[in-house]
Amino acid sequence: MNRPGGEGFVWPVRVYYEDTDCGGVVYHARYLHYFERARTEWLRAAGFSQRRLSEDRDLLFVVRRLEIDYLASAHYDDELLVLTHVEPRGAASLAFDQRIRRRGSGAEAGELCRARVQVVAVRGGTMRPCRIPETILREVIR
Amino acid sequence: MNRPGGEGFVWPVRVYYEDTDCGGVVYHARYLHYFERARTEWLRAAGFSQRRLSEDRDLLFVVRRLEIDYLASAHYDDELLVLTHVEPRGAASLAFDQRIRRRGSGAEAGELCRARVQVVAVRGGTMRPCRIPETILREVIR
Amino acid sequence: MNRPGGEGFVWPVRVYYEDTDCGGVVYHARYLHYFERARTEWLRAAGFSQRRLSEDRDLLFVVRRLEIDYLASAHYDDELLVLTHVEPRGAASLAFDQRIRRRGSGAEAGELCRARVQVVAVRGGTMRPCRIPETILREVIR
Amino acid sequence: MNRPGGEGFVWPVRVYYEDTDCGGVVYHARYLHYFERARTEWLRAAGFSQRRLSEDRDLLFVVRRLEIDYLASAHYDDELLVLTHVEPRGAASLAFDQRIRRRGSGAEAGELCRARVQVVAVRGGTMRPCRIPETILREVIR
Repeated sequence: MNRPGGEGFVWPVRVYYEDTDCGGVVYHARYLHYFERARTEWLRAAGFSQRRLSEDRDLLFVVRRLEIDYLASAHYDDELLVLTHVEPRGAASLAFDQRIRRRGSGAEAGELCRARVQVVAVRGGTMRPCRIPETILREVIR
Repeated sequence: MNRPGGEGFVWPVRVYYEDTDCGGVVYHARYLHYFERARTEWLRAAGFSQRRLSEDRDLLFVVRRLEIDYLASAHYDDELLVLTHVEPRGAASLAFDQRIRRRGSGAEAGELCRARVQVVAVRGGTMRPCRIPETILREVIR
Repeated sequence: MNRPGGEGFVWPVRVYYEDTDCGGVVYHARYLHYFERARTEWLRAAGFSQRRLSEDRDLLFVVRRLEIDYLASAHYDDELLVLTHVEPRGAASLAFDQRIRRRGSGAEAGELCRARVQVVAVRGGTMRPCRIPETILREVIR
Repeated sequence: MNRPGGEGFVWPVRVYYEDTDCGGVVYHARYLHYFERARTEWLRAAGFSQRRLSEDRDLLFVVRRLEIDYLASAHYDDELLVLTHVEPRGAASLAFDQRIRRRGSGAEAGELCRARVQVVAVRGGTMRPCRIPETILREVIR
């Protein structure tokens, strides 16, 4: 999933009216939605459905900490790409490095925002941390 | 709750950035949030918590049908009032007539949108309709 | 765009966490987002960008009236299809008939909700109705 | 606005269905909405309307960087308090320290999340940083 030297896992996002605010740009909290869609699709591309992890193993991934830098604005109708790298952090935690840039090349394709997201595996019942299944970790460190 | 000749139950809402879109106005789906907040607070004002109805009786209220007319736009920072009237429709259903207008008087206070919302009481487990508790109905028809 | 006897214009939507509420289902206002994405993509498929219509002709499409029936619930991770039919209503208005169903066939693919949406073309400056460009109308009535 | 030893500016927030996800808790991006509402109301309490700053001086406040720690979950119907402290950072920037806790006292009132938010004043036309008006800075450092 993490091709060295590459952009990591790439997930496209289109900006709709729902994503923008009256400043004319994408609302700052909305990027967190985009990042989460990309983490979900990264996991799906690795063969794992969060719905099944929850139903079969009572395992949820929750965001524990998040840092985000806003570098430039995205606008209505933009085609964005969410780039996702991930590394394990202990047995229960994943560290995501995620960036968003406009689709295209050259000046248009500059980075719009960048986030570091710490995600923890928890039991749904107790919300207490638990080990991430080996099969998932193996995909991560490939 | 339904004072005759009056505006019904009144709930104030402030418009924040999150509510607007790049057209400079409140995003059309967001009014549904405002209407739901007002229905929740109407029920709370009548002495009922939806959280407790769900936990104690497995009773949820779900929207079954909704009609909405958009008459004029609300803008960032506006102070709005949601006006709510309600009537029973059979044993399991409530019919809400809800309007949104700007706080104030005169031309500023014109109606911005109006909705008719049919809400049904269901069991959370099965999502099948169930009787609305008498204590709630009594509040409605007061 | 409106193949007779067919499903109309089809746009896929995936349900993410952001779309659901603590009742375990897609939040009722969120379907309006899905319907709008599909209308935007329908217009794009016909060769029109709303961004360019706004920038070049100061033309916006706004929702004037909306009716929606909620028939069954969508859940986290569901793959949905938004089916869109459209007809002109006078010179400034379009009538959309939109449905959402789960991707798949058989019982799984039942209709989840259905909306009739009246959209009006307006000048961005004044928000007053204006004629829909002939090139768009021609696509609609094909 | 920043009473020493105190909780700073306090803004109440009620959790509605719209704020939650199917994990049964408040969706992680939604806290950013709560924080922004509190920053807006802090500014309003100090006598400044962002709408007027934008209309009269073409001045916008935008989020440049954000760090957030999620400590515990908020749930449907919770009454939350957003606590806001602010300090200037140079001539164009404000550093907010914001926390969310449940209303009440004792164990219930533990901190749910904490954010450090860097906000920059920009000209709306160019999105370039500009000086924060002295009248606002004076309120901040009181």
